[in-house]
Amino acid sequence: MVEAHLNVAQDAPGTSEADNPRESLVVHFGPDKPLKLDAGVELSPFQIAYKTYGTLNSARSNAVLICHALTGDHHVASVHPVTKKNGWWETMVGPGRPIDTERYFVICANVVGACMGTTGPASTNPKTGKPWGLEFPVITIRDMVRAQAMLLDHLGIGTLFAVAGGSMGGMQVLQWAASYPERVFAALPVACATRHSAQNIAFHEVGRQAIMADPEWRGGRYLIENTNPRRGLAVARMGAHITYLSDAALHRKFGRKFQDRENPTFSFDADFEVESYLRHQGISFVERFDANSYLYLTRAMDYFDLAADYDGILANAFKNSPTRICVVSFTSDWLFPTSESRAIVHALNASGARVSFAEIVTDKGHDAFLLDEPELFAIVRGFLDGAAHARGLKVAP
Amino acid sequence: MVEAHLNVAQDAPGTSEADNPRESLVVHFGPDKPLKLDAGVELSPFQIAYKTYGTLNSARSNAVLICHALTGDHHVASVHPVTKKNGWWETMVGPGRPIDTERYFVICANVVGACMGTTGPASTNPKTGKPWGLEFPVITIRDMVRAQAMLLDHLGIGTLFAVAGGSMGGMQVLQWAASYPERVFAALPVACATRHSAQNIAFHEVGRQAIMADPEWRGGRYLIENTNPRRGLAVARMGAHITYLSDAALHRKFGRKFQDRENPTFSFDADFEVESYLRHQGISFVERFDANSYLYLTRAMDYFDLAADYDGILANAFKNSPTRICVVSFTSDWLFPTSESRAIVHALNASGARVSFAEIVTDKGHDAFLLDEPELFAIVRGFLDGAAHARGLKVAP
Repeated sequence: MVEAHLNVAQDAPGTSEADNPRESLVVHFGPDKPLKLDAGVELSPFQIAYKTYGTLNSARSNAVLICHALTGDHHVASVHPVTKKNGWWETMVGPGRPIDTERYFVICANVVGACMGTTGPASTNPKTGKPWGLEFPVITIRDMVRAQAMLLDHLGIGTLFAVAGGSMGGMQVLQWAASYPERVFAALPVACATRHSAQNIAFHEVGRQAIMADPEWRGGRYLIENTNPRRGLAVARMGAHITYLSDAALHRKFGRKFQDRENPTFSFDADFEVESYLRHQGISFVERFDANSYLYLTRAMDYFDLAADYDGILANAFKNSPTRICVVSFTSDWLFPTSESRAIVHALNASGARVSFAEIVTDKGHDAFLLDEPELFAIVRGFLDGAAHARGLKVAP
Repeated sequence: MVEAHLNVAQDAPGTSEADNPRESLVVHFGPDKPLKLDAGVELSPFQIAYKTYGTLNSARSNAVLICHALTGDHHVASVHPVTKKNGWWETMVGPGRPIDTERYFVICANVVGACMGTTGPASTNPKTGKPWGLEFPVITIRDMVRAQAMLLDHLGIGTLFAVAGGSMGGMQVLQWAASYPERVFAALPVACATRHSAQNIAFHEVGRQAIMADPEWRGGRYLIENTNPRRGLAVARMGAHITYLSDAALHRKFGRKFQDRENPTFSFDADFEVESYLRHQGISFVERFDANSYLYLTRAMDYFDLAADYDGILANAFKNSPTRICVVSFTSDWLFPTSESRAIVHALNASGARVSFAEIVTDKGHDAFLLDEPELFAIVRGFLDGAAHARGLKVAP
């Protein structure tokens, strides 16, 4: 096992050196440490890119794992090396933030199958010396969590104080609570579900078909053939992006406003503001994301069905769990409706777990978990404060 | 003006000869009868393909115009010449049906911009002798209605007993009531809105981008260059199809059921039933629909904003309207939510119009207007019976 810096991941100047190392960390797992996948094969060798913020205390008891969403990565609270934008959860994680890096040691790892430093379909297949492409094994949410557990072993962290994440990140949080209850003191699944719905699988399938319909995709061999299915990936992103918002949010933000003009052009230009916004979402996404990773991560979400691993009974997934769980949902989230979160809470209640539930009233849709949502911040802060007290963690200075 | 039979439109044997002519009818409008478009240009010459069912009475007072939706056509109640499937509203229109062809003379015309016989982007541009492609002018819902009014003039029908339709068809119904109130005795807009929402424009834009991203689209010149953007069009259809259903309907119909197997394949095959269903929807659609028509008709819907033509005050669109209007919506329709129909009803009330409103409780989503929905049938039958009585139409035998 070798640890190295990932040289692509330069943080911008001006970020705090102590809490915010300038580069991603990378851990390599050699042939002695394969990742056993649900698909029945082993991934080896492989590597995990991650970042940490804050300081691990001497008792190694203040670690918080953040799990990222489909198109996220480990750049949680520091400038993104490609987009140069702020970290995706900088409002939530940092000094004095709800997940306070002056108090907690925060870890976030790029998931297996992704494209920001952790092994994925764009990585080199050791058998061929070329990018994996579709030869990369299909991975699951449980595989992602298994890899994260290996990272924690490597870091010498037995028990997490907390694990938190939204959307696909929330699925990982639930999987953590089910797979390793003894390693998770507190869990915060936000805007997620214990299984992907038929409608969500359908939306993912449209995105995948958009990518695969792009002739530059070349059966997934575009890196070898030096092409780029950017148009298909952009269409996939545009479609998905609509599902992250809400009808009300789109109406408030754009309505039927025309772009830089007062009347329609009677053409197929981006007449409406919402059209140019979507086109921008598509174009900017392809600069930072790998098309095959998009296929693999959407597939992992489709396959997620926590109850299926426990004879179809969700409560069994959390039986005798010592983990404190706080489930958070948003009223206007139609990708992971509040009813799905209620189902989680019912299952947790049925299994006798410690559970609290917060349904936040907002019209911002699924993406509310990434936005400036004071109620969410207050809930996360309060839940972690209570858990820290129960855990006997020193109060922040 | 010449009337001719459209030879592509052969109906299957076994359909009723009297109510159901074997072929589409086509009316050609020559240089003396241009279609004046909202885009500020004239379309000339042009033709309209249509079908009729039932018999026009001697007073010419029993005509019902049916307006079709985005991907529909004039094959309302007889076998479709391409798909060989039943007409798209055969449960609603026919002998003894709610729109009873033993009582009413039913007309349905393929809209301008479409691809089943009426002039559209796949038709020949008289200036070049080649298919129009993107040289075809952008059309609006009002343009479609203007063309229908010209068809009625040609048929010698001054006033329609009723005009009915769902989705884009419902938009045409509303436009009819606003543009030609004196020509419409009763109007039945189903599952529609007076303007397309930002979310709906966004979904349409994704579909258009999917088509335009297909290299075989060739800037809209695929008919000239002998290519076919079938993959882009299939992706567009798949995405749109999700919006026609509901989360609940997809869950009931497919859930997370695997296709012909019990376990996941850990691949990108159509593992889930909902995936193969969607793929089938995409593939079968491209056999019967023109990609450029899809661009034009979605654009027409995007541009639809009835209030905008009346100083932004929807009620003014229906001021002093003599038309009886029955607005129908479905509780699980998230493309045209019930709240949009309520807005129509409020505007009609404010303008003193005769309006009734039926909100049908169903989990079938937007497509409920096309499905076996007994409450819808009862409402349509009741509304037309009442209107027929008021109009003094002879009761059905």
